[in-house]
Order: sequence, then C-alpha cells, then structure tokens
Amino acid sequence: MSVIVGYIPTREGRAALRAARAEALLRETKLIVVNSHRGGRDFDAVEAQRFEEELTTVQHDLDEAGIQHEVRALVRGNEPAEDLVQVADESDGMLIVIGLRRRTPIGKLILGSNAQRILLEATCPVLAVKAGEDD
Amino acid sequence: MSVIVGYIPTREGRAALRAARAEALLRETKLIVVNSHRGGRDFDAVEAQRFEEELTTVQHDLDEAGIQHEVRALVRGNEPAEDLVQVADESDGMLIVIGLRRRTPIGKLILGSNAQRILLEATCPVLAVKAGEDD
Repeated sequence: MSVIVGYIPTREGRAALRAARAEALLRETKLIVVNSHRGGRDFDAVEAQRFEEELTTVQHDLDEAGIQHEVRALVRGNEPAEDLVQVADESDGMLIVIGLRRRTPIGKLILGSNAQRILLEATCPVLAVKAGEDD
Repeated sequence: MSVIVGYIPTREGRAALRAARAEALLRETKLIVVNSHRGGRDFDAVEAQRFEEELTTVQHDLDEAGIQHEVRALVRGNEPAEDLVQVADESDGMLIVIGLRRRTPIGKLILGSNAQRILLEATCPVLAVKAGEDD
C-alpha cells in the first residue's frame, strides 16, 4: 500500500507534496512521488537538469523527515494523469494526492484536464488540495 | 476540526460515507454528515419522510460504531455544493469527502457540476471516492 503524489515545482505541487507527506505518516505507509514529464522537443538539457535537482531536494527532505519513500521521474510521453493513475494501480495505491489551482491567471475557476482525468480514472480515492499562503 | 461528508442514499453516497467514517477515525475527529436537499415543489411529504428515515439509520450506525458525529439535514434551497462548502467553513472542516460517479448511464466519464464546485470552492482538502462493488 502506498500514497502517490504528482509533484511539479509549483505552489500547487508543493501543497500536494506537503499533504501527501502528512497522509503517508498518518496511514503509516510509503510515499511515492511521481514527477511526470512528457519529454519531447521542449525537454532540453537545462530543463532535465533542473528537474533532476528538484527531485534530489525532495528526496533529501523526505529522508530527513524519516518518511519511507520512492521518487519516480517519468519521461515516457504520457500525460501526467496517465502516469499517476498507472503508478497508483501498479503499486497498490491507497490514495492519490493532487494539487489544484484555485484560479487561472485571469481569475476564472476551472478544473484542469489533468485533475479531471485523475479524479475520474483513478481506482483509489483522490485527495485534492489547494495551495496555501505559504506554498 | 471535523470531517464533512455529503451524503445521499446512492452507491456513491454510501462510498463517501464509508470513506469519511474511516477518515474521521484515522484523524480522531468528529464526522459531520450533511444531507442537502434543495426542497421546493418536488420535495413532498413522502420524500421528506424517507429522507428523515435514512438519516436516522446513518445516525444509528455511527452511534453503534462509536464515531463522534453530527447529522445535518439541510433544506434551504441551496445546491448541495454550496451547503457542503459552507458547513466545512463554519465548522473548521479539515476534510470534505465526496462520492464520484464513475460513469453516466450511457457510459461516459464526466465530473458532475456539484463535484466540480466543491473541488474548486472548498477551502479545505477534498477527498473524492468512487463506489465499489459492494456499495
């Protein structure tokens, strides 16, 4: 059993990671951090390195906090939603945690397509969190 | 602090209630069951009675399970999403639990408008669960 979180270095991503850590501790289970990237032309060497560094920091923080974890950087051409649901299915996920953007830059409330897909396609429960003031 | 669940007597409603009970136990907090009905012309005496009986059963089950709880039957002309988000705000909700329908009767995957509103407007995290085989 495990808690799965989709992590990207945004306010929502950090909020999701923080909530997922708390859930993994509460449930006394492993945390799987999934950083999914479609790859392709836009994914250049600089970005790849930044991506790796971020995950190293996350891993270090989880080590320090004594949370049993696994970090998976996936670059296999999938949409993040696909990767997340797949990892949850493969690893007997008990919970997927995602971060929601509260508003678009123009102030409209919408639920992104990735969030919708995860909510609909996940076979386990999905916890949706929003970024707080400090994220 | 409390866990808030929107309950209606459907497979999704039962799944949400079951998940919310587990979360309230895990978090050692109170469970608030919200049964929201818009009221109006469609809400006749027969339905009102069925509605009351259901909530009595839920209350009885929670009593038996020793879960600290509160059941609120709201008929104030609101959309269920509005009621749920409001109750969560008023009662220092730490988590809202909702049930999602996996498929419409014609097999299409969609996220209902109430679910979307709750996910977007809630100030606390939202746990979305789907009905299982036994619900």
